[in-house]
Amino acid sequence: MKISGQIIDVVGRKMFPGTVTVENGKITDIVEEPNNSTNIIMPGMVDAHIHIESSMLVPSEFARMAVVHGSVGAVCDPHEIANVLGINGIRFMIDNGKSVPFKFYFGAPSCVPATTFETSGAVIDHNDIETLMAMDDIHFLGEMMNYPSVIFNDEEVHLKLEAARRHDKPIDGHAPGVTGDDAKKYVGAGISTDHECFTLEEALEKVKLGMKILIREGSAAKNFDALVPLFKTCPDKVMFCSDDRHPDDLIKCHINDSVRRAISLGYDKFDVIRAATVAPVEHYKMKIGLLQKNDPADFIVIDNFKNFNVLQTYINGELVAENGESKLAHIATTPINNFNAEPVTAADFYVEENGKKVNVIEIIPGQLVTNKVVVDRHDPDVLKIAVINRYQKSKPAVGYVKNFGLKRGALASSIAHDSHNIVVVGCSDEEMAAAVNQIVTCKGGITAYSKEICVTMPMPVAGLMNNGDGYMVAEAYKDVDKFAKNLGTTLNAPFMTMGFMALLVIPSLKLSDKGLFDGDKFQFENLMAE
Amino acid sequence: MKISGQIIDVVGRKMFPGTVTVENGKITDIVEEPNNSTNIIMPGMVDAHIHIESSMLVPSEFARMAVVHGSVGAVCDPHEIANVLGINGIRFMIDNGKSVPFKFYFGAPSCVPATTFETSGAVIDHNDIETLMAMDDIHFLGEMMNYPSVIFNDEEVHLKLEAARRHDKPIDGHAPGVTGDDAKKYVGAGISTDHECFTLEEALEKVKLGMKILIREGSAAKNFDALVPLFKTCPDKVMFCSDDRHPDDLIKCHINDSVRRAISLGYDKFDVIRAATVAPVEHYKMKIGLLQKNDPADFIVIDNFKNFNVLQTYINGELVAENGESKLAHIATTPINNFNAEPVTAADFYVEENGKKVNVIEIIPGQLVTNKVVVDRHDPDVLKIAVINRYQKSKPAVGYVKNFGLKRGALASSIAHDSHNIVVVGCSDEEMAAAVNQIVTCKGGITAYSKEICVTMPMPVAGLMNNGDGYMVAEAYKDVDKFAKNLGTTLNAPFMTMGFMALLVIPSLKLSDKGLFDGDKFQFENLMAE
Repeated sequence: MKISGQIIDVVGRKMFPGTVTVENGKITDIVEEPNNSTNIIMPGMVDAHIHIESSMLVPSEFARMAVVHGSVGAVCDPHEIANVLGINGIRFMIDNGKSVPFKFYFGAPSCVPATTFETSGAVIDHNDIETLMAMDDIHFLGEMMNYPSVIFNDEEVHLKLEAARRHDKPIDGHAPGVTGDDAKKYVGAGISTDHECFTLEEALEKVKLGMKILIREGSAAKNFDALVPLFKTCPDKVMFCSDDRHPDDLIKCHINDSVRRAISLGYDKFDVIRAATVAPVEHYKMKIGLLQKNDPADFIVIDNFKNFNVLQTYINGELVAENGESKLAHIATTPINNFNAEPVTAADFYVEENGKKVNVIEIIPGQLVTNKVVVDRHDPDVLKIAVINRYQKSKPAVGYVKNFGLKRGALASSIAHDSHNIVVVGCSDEEMAAAVNQIVTCKGGITAYSKEICVTMPMPVAGLMNNGDGYMVAEAYKDVDKFAKNLGTTLNAPFMTMGFMALLVIPSLKLSDKGLFDGDKFQFENLMAE
Repeated sequence: MKISGQIIDVVGRKMFPGTVTVENGKITDIVEEPNNSTNIIMPGMVDAHIHIESSMLVPSEFARMAVVHGSVGAVCDPHEIANVLGINGIRFMIDNGKSVPFKFYFGAPSCVPATTFETSGAVIDHNDIETLMAMDDIHFLGEMMNYPSVIFNDEEVHLKLEAARRHDKPIDGHAPGVTGDDAKKYVGAGISTDHECFTLEEALEKVKLGMKILIREGSAAKNFDALVPLFKTCPDKVMFCSDDRHPDDLIKCHINDSVRRAISLGYDKFDVIRAATVAPVEHYKMKIGLLQKNDPADFIVIDNFKNFNVLQTYINGELVAENGESKLAHIATTPINNFNAEPVTAADFYVEENGKKVNVIEIIPGQLVTNKVVVDRHDPDVLKIAVINRYQKSKPAVGYVKNFGLKRGALASSIAHDSHNIVVVGCSDEEMAAAVNQIVTCKGGITAYSKEICVTMPMPVAGLMNNGDGYMVAEAYKDVDKFAKNLGTTLNAPFMTMGFMALLVIPSLKLSDKGLFDGDKFQFENLMAE
């Protein structure tokens, strides 16, 4: 096969008219020669950090949709499924990813569970990390979120880091706002990337310490605008990532959009394309071609830099997407799960009325941090929230939440970071029970429940992913979201917000299956205010 | 209160300008006097035969929506809930109906269960009918569908008829296509109405025998066009009814639409209005006013006969609807139910493959009758159908159905005439099980299930009705229907069609919770064809 056009040599930093010859999945020749095509041929793009689970799709289906946008590979931290299913979950992701030509590079999640104040489905200790690091299919140690333990010399954490270093595999970072000596110590442990910077200053300090910075533009966090000026000062330290990408967003675009935007802002196109190709491929030692002779034929054809329409995507010489349509077929996937919750009743959500005011989680729209406020539970915008252990039959842990905005019905989900127990917010105990029982019946999912109609997207794969058609999953997610908003919540992404209400490591007040948790004091808190 | 306009005296067959005086819920004076209003004041309308359950709403909520269309009362056969809950179900309907001013007139269902070849939730025998007939709140014996037993002198059936006659309460008929001597014998038993005529000839013969004919225009059966010429020959023998009215249709109109259409066709307006007012009020001895001095103030105000917009509806002098808005508040209703089915698994739907062809239910779109055909189960348009006893834990009875058209997913419902077990049609055993489990979780409802999204309208009231807001129920029904059609079925009303697949009394092949049933031979049939 021969393809002509304007060829991008991102290694040699030049663009020239020419013809690429592909044989047996490899690029066997690249000849500079005049041709009439204005199409641009460039290496396929890589997402340098993503939790595939956030797409609510299994890897094979994620790939089917991502190739349409010119993506050929991704660096994936299976942190979510690992919290549910441990090493078996990681193996599931790896095996499923192998069913498609897309180049998945999985790592070992470093922080499972996130805390000891909640019930997770699995624990990944340093012995497990040793096992994982020894596997050829594990390419890095996943984001080390537990930066206090790195800084304060927690032995278990350091044994995990040591295992990665011993196997010469990169260690990803996650240290928002960590600077100065703490940052030095963190980097000194061999942690070489960060995707959590939200200011340019923080990013520049980390670059100085030797880190590479991932410009994140995902469904949850968007740091592109803040960090894109890095291309001015340290373009060789930059990669692109999405971190979290919901299915409805994955339909629209992927890394291609960050590349297009950065080029349109006037940054050097070779620098920008490098960040989406060479940088992650070299850092994670990915066997992904860079449009060089003898490379695997992983490349894309686009119309021009302004529109950046992906006309064709090739992986190992195979045409996997063309003009917005995936050439990859949907593959049937048998679910893997760890879900043992049993049906609940309205009475399970009862809280004795004793006249006292309660400690309430106040949502700050658009943010993961919450306020801790003391109010009357009968305040009209205070709703009940509950988290229910999904790993064994248990009673709900009940709290109160403000600013959720639901006027009737209940929302429930089995995506509740990081242990992924069941989280529910509702206007009555009856509706909360009914919503939770939807999740129990489907063994995972998201549901918008009202007395009149109940709309559920089942997630039988670990209670985190749907094993259906990705395009239909995207529609389903939009539908459930629409019905949720019909119930009155004005939150932009109510299921995402709800899913973070159980993430204890982010202050100030959260709820785990074991009870209300003060993230500032890092200890449990009473429901009743003193 | 005084209201002026053009007053319809349907008893005196005249229209005149005048003023109606209402005091303490009664009409205390009607004075003929000139006034400037072109509005027409006429008696409120009555649905002469309806199963309220078909609206999927409890009576109080049905009333809330019907008054908007100028309805003030209805003759109701609680046949559906009686099959589920017996006399307790009937009492529930009566009590619930009393919570609103709308004038419900309930009867005693005569044929519960419909056959002995299925499991119903209750049996209403002649002793129960005796009990019911003695109740002041029971005004008639419901449609006697078992016309063969009337004609062939079945003792139990005749004891029921005798009880109604003894209490001097009307007996409703249901005898489609019964003519000649059979019809004479049927009428001779004291059965005085029929709402099942689908030809004018049949109606005229029954009128000659002394019956009154109800012109039915409902969600399921539409006989208006065929029967409206009765106003030419025997206008005093005619009433209007809907029989079944789905919530999405109830939003649009009620008896008002039949009245408007009949008048617009040129039939005498006094005859037409009489059929919607005087005729049922007199036949069923309803305490509903007819816009006469000293009558209860049950009347409506419309703009003109052409548009027939209902501007106001009054019941006992209370303004219950105005300009399309109901003045009745939604009333909370505690569900009553009889639902003991337990979750099923895909394996429960397994049918051993033995190479034989199978007896298949062939749907005839738009009709309740089916064909019995022998085909290969792997025919691309042959799907599995199952009926599952909802009254105790049981294995599904599995059959095959043709022409349902579903391409993926499954539909399930707990509305399955007349015993209202769970009926499901699906493209795979897994999807059928998941759909049924939705119904089990909600203890009744309708669901459109696909791998990616599941949309359910719960029906916790007897598994037949939703106790929420009627307008939202109408939207919910439309939503579930829309999602069902997204799964590929081209049937106009897939849930209604599915619900009639368990109605054994209508040939040729149907399915009960006990197995495949040949309605021509009136006996069970093997799944495997000989």
